[in-house]
Amino acid sequence: MASQPVTFSFLLISILISSASSASFEPLIQLPATTTGRKSHVDDDLYCSSWHLSIETNNAGSWAQISSRCESFVQDYMTGQRYMSDSEIVANYSLGYASSIEIASDGKDAWIFDVDETLLSNLPYYQAHGFGSETFDENSWDLWVDLAEAPAIPASLKLYNALKQMGFKIVVLTGRTENQRNVTEKNLMLAGYTGWERLLLRGPSDEGTPATVFKSERRSVLVNEGYRIHGSSGDQWSDLLGFALAKRSFKLPNAMYYIA
Amino acid sequence: MASQPVTFSFLLISILISSASSASFEPLIQLPATTTGRKSHVDDDLYCSSWHLSIETNNAGSWAQISSRCESFVQDYMTGQRYMSDSEIVANYSLGYASSIEIASDGKDAWIFDVDETLLSNLPYYQAHGFGSETFDENSWDLWVDLAEAPAIPASLKLYNALKQMGFKIVVLTGRTENQRNVTEKNLMLAGYTGWERLLLRGPSDEGTPATVFKSERRSVLVNEGYRIHGSSGDQWSDLLGFALAKRSFKLPNAMYYIA
Repeated sequence: MASQPVTFSFLLISILISSASSASFEPLIQLPATTTGRKSHVDDDLYCSSWHLSIETNNAGSWAQISSRCESFVQDYMTGQRYMSDSEIVANYSLGYASSIEIASDGKDAWIFDVDETLLSNLPYYQAHGFGSETFDENSWDLWVDLAEAPAIPASLKLYNALKQMGFKIVVLTGRTENQRNVTEKNLMLAGYTGWERLLLRGPSDEGTPATVFKSERRSVLVNEGYRIHGSSGDQWSDLLGFALAKRSFKLPNAMYYIA
Repeated sequence: MASQPVTFSFLLISILISSASSASFEPLIQLPATTTGRKSHVDDDLYCSSWHLSIETNNAGSWAQISSRCESFVQDYMTGQRYMSDSEIVANYSLGYASSIEIASDGKDAWIFDVDETLLSNLPYYQAHGFGSETFDENSWDLWVDLAEAPAIPASLKLYNALKQMGFKIVVLTGRTENQRNVTEKNLMLAGYTGWERLLLRGPSDEGTPATVFKSERRSVLVNEGYRIHGSSGDQWSDLLGFALAKRSFKLPNAMYYIA
């Protein structure tokens, strides 16, 4: 449904309100017969803003790629002030929560970070690939990962360092594969990240395992080792759902792609 | 942290990026020395948009009431096109998911709806009470509930009717109390809602129980009675988290208040 081209107007909303009491299976939002360029842009922005909220809240569920209708919205969002602001506020809430936790002396107070669009930003890659509007291409992605040039998301780097200083053990848990371990370590360090407790990647036996299951399994191992997972930061709901959950989860924004 | 007055600017963001590699406990977002009226409005809008995303995704966790800084943002949001659009898209995704479910003949395929800001809109009340910026006043709220005049949220009413027609059993599960049963039934029917399977409210023994626990307990009873809870629609995370969860949960927007 994410790619269904729907358009809003005041008129349409008035019609919806007046006809709301009749039960039907027709789409709740209907296409008006025509749209002007100007109105269409406004309508696209409204639609894409609501679509973005629906993916950030997981209301949209699984989705393949952004619709061409929202490509310019996503570009504006990811390259503008709003993405930066949204990332900052998530980090602020994370730090506020972290500050409420008493760190024990046993070194078992843990915080989990995902890598892509959580610690590192792949905007340089996605800028060259339609901001998520193109079908994912594993070859070009792997070449980008091998460059180890993804910059840090500034708010995440500040949060990471603050948590480390507070005594949290940082576990980096990513869907990247073991054969990308060296370039991932290199990239994280070049971006300013140091001193993690673990860097957990997908091994050969994790191939084909959904991200939610893979990440839950790794968290289970940590829990069995005695770690208390206080927080988990990720841009995908598959970072934050499943089992062996963190006490608090923090959803970083990502309007570009979805990982099941 | 939700009420912490913070202000953004391009300059500030540049500073944050350049200083991001230094670990510190200082707030991630800092106040610039001065702000102009014009800039302040833009900054408030950016901040309040990000704050709104943080409450819709539950990143903010528990929060008491909206800050005075965001009162006009919340008013604009709740009374403008965006709230309507966000509600429509949630309903569309809900219906898309519901359409994928095969309804059995045993009458046990259920969908749960919350009442306030899910089936019914209390905007007329909140318009007279600062859109959530005032401390909650139980007396005036109870008087409003007794009027039974809350209108339907149009997209929710269409969804409700569509689900009913598809064969789902509708369970209405609300934090309103048993002594509000009659006015709640009256209000729901006046707003166009009919034919629910159950209307579950807080009884005397539920007093003091957190909403998440109360609603989870009621869902558990339904599951034990053989209901398959396919979907749950609510504007509060306490409608959607806990145990005996629906297979899919849908978070309706609400920028005005939080219920733990």
